[in-house]
Amino acid sequence: MKIDILSLFPDMFTGFLNTSIIKRAIDSHIVEVNIHDFREFADNKHKKVDDYPYGGGQGMVLMCQPIVDCLKTLTTPKSLVILMSPQGQTLQQSVSVQLAQYEHLIIICGHYEGFDERIRDYVDMELSIGDYILTGGELASMVVCDSIIRLLDGAIRETSHEDDSFSEGLLEYPQYTRPYEYDGNAVPDVLLSGHHENIRQWRLKQSLLKTYRQRPDLLEKKELTKEELKILQEIKENN
Amino acid sequence: MKIDILSLFPDMFTGFLNTSIIKRAIDSHIVEVNIHDFREFADNKHKKVDDYPYGGGQGMVLMCQPIVDCLKTLTTPKSLVILMSPQGQTLQQSVSVQLAQYEHLIIICGHYEGFDERIRDYVDMELSIGDYILTGGELASMVVCDSIIRLLDGAIRETSHEDDSFSEGLLEYPQYTRPYEYDGNAVPDVLLSGHHENIRQWRLKQSLLKTYRQRPDLLEKKELTKEELKILQEIKENN
Repeated sequence: MKIDILSLFPDMFTGFLNTSIIKRAIDSHIVEVNIHDFREFADNKHKKVDDYPYGGGQGMVLMCQPIVDCLKTLTTPKSLVILMSPQGQTLQQSVSVQLAQYEHLIIICGHYEGFDERIRDYVDMELSIGDYILTGGELASMVVCDSIIRLLDGAIRETSHEDDSFSEGLLEYPQYTRPYEYDGNAVPDVLLSGHHENIRQWRLKQSLLKTYRQRPDLLEKKELTKEELKILQEIKENN
Repeated sequence: MKIDILSLFPDMFTGFLNTSIIKRAIDSHIVEVNIHDFREFADNKHKKVDDYPYGGGQGMVLMCQPIVDCLKTLTTPKSLVILMSPQGQTLQQSVSVQLAQYEHLIIICGHYEGFDERIRDYVDMELSIGDYILTGGELASMVVCDSIIRLLDGAIRETSHEDDSFSEGLLEYPQYTRPYEYDGNAVPDVLLSGHHENIRQWRLKQSLLKTYRQRPDLLEKKELTKEELKILQEIKENN
């Protein structure tokens, strides 16, 4: 996969691209990530990329020309152009899974300013990472990249993302590691039993319990198995 | 405000802390942000911070000791300790507004591994930035910091965050800047009229229209004024 990111702050991406799983995925040619400073495409003398809004109001608005001209050098028939914007569709794991199928993503980040509305004519998808305001699209674009890249074949160990929260539609069960007792709290006995089926059942129940208490909305979206329905019934009776 | 972040990847934060609004807020002493590598607190010879999960399973689990010992050096009665976790409450603008009232936030980031469940005993709040999986809590913690810091007095120009999407519960109206015509598309005439009241009404209608089409769920959460209700009624009749 190739990801091109348009941003006025390329340096913000350095730490992200040089850490851990993302760095490994880039080094292993699983993904190629390029950051493009669209200021370089501004066709005015002062390399201005924004201007005052028509009709008045606070803040500056990013102009069409630098972004659209930068896009034109990158877009191919296989590209999906994404605009990071609070007005976009909210990212969810299912969206990341879909986006991970593309060969080429182009992601446009604004920073602080808004976009000239006409930029939207050159965009395939608007994406938000949640209902909160950020100073720019840079962090949001990194969040999108991170959630996609870890899904690519070979980016992380084959099976290790299957247990994650949301990938099964439930919150993750409690995890414990050494020491057996910490500050007076011991690991639940079942996890030391060596009885795989009991451990599996305990984890499933804990997962359902956590989801029921903290994110009941997730249970409504999920198709539950017979076993899950039975456990959930017990949980509801005990609460 | 002071923000302490616990992370195994301090370098990931460099770009974020050195850019634009966040850098200015730090330089102006509006906020102090410190990154703490909790590996330095590991009391074992090899500075190990994780271990295998009890009961088996994929992946490694972050141990209590390094994180809790690091926390102990930072926590005061005024601190709020936040754990970044997919299992937490989902960040929303209203949560950021609340968090911006604190004098001292401590944010714990895991990376890839899960946390030993007993770490949760030392935490005041678990926070997620959305229903998707990331390789670590670092980006998520930056998103939280960014959304909070921009709300602090003096971080951005007084009035410029009042028009943002979500801060009024509606998506933002379309913005335009020069040139008047781009690629055959002209700026709507009303914005050039100089008639402030007409511009205000047009923007409000566009804002409601966008929200109605793209995020109708936001309209259900918002208390609409009489004017907004009337415009929304017209929008519904025309659709």
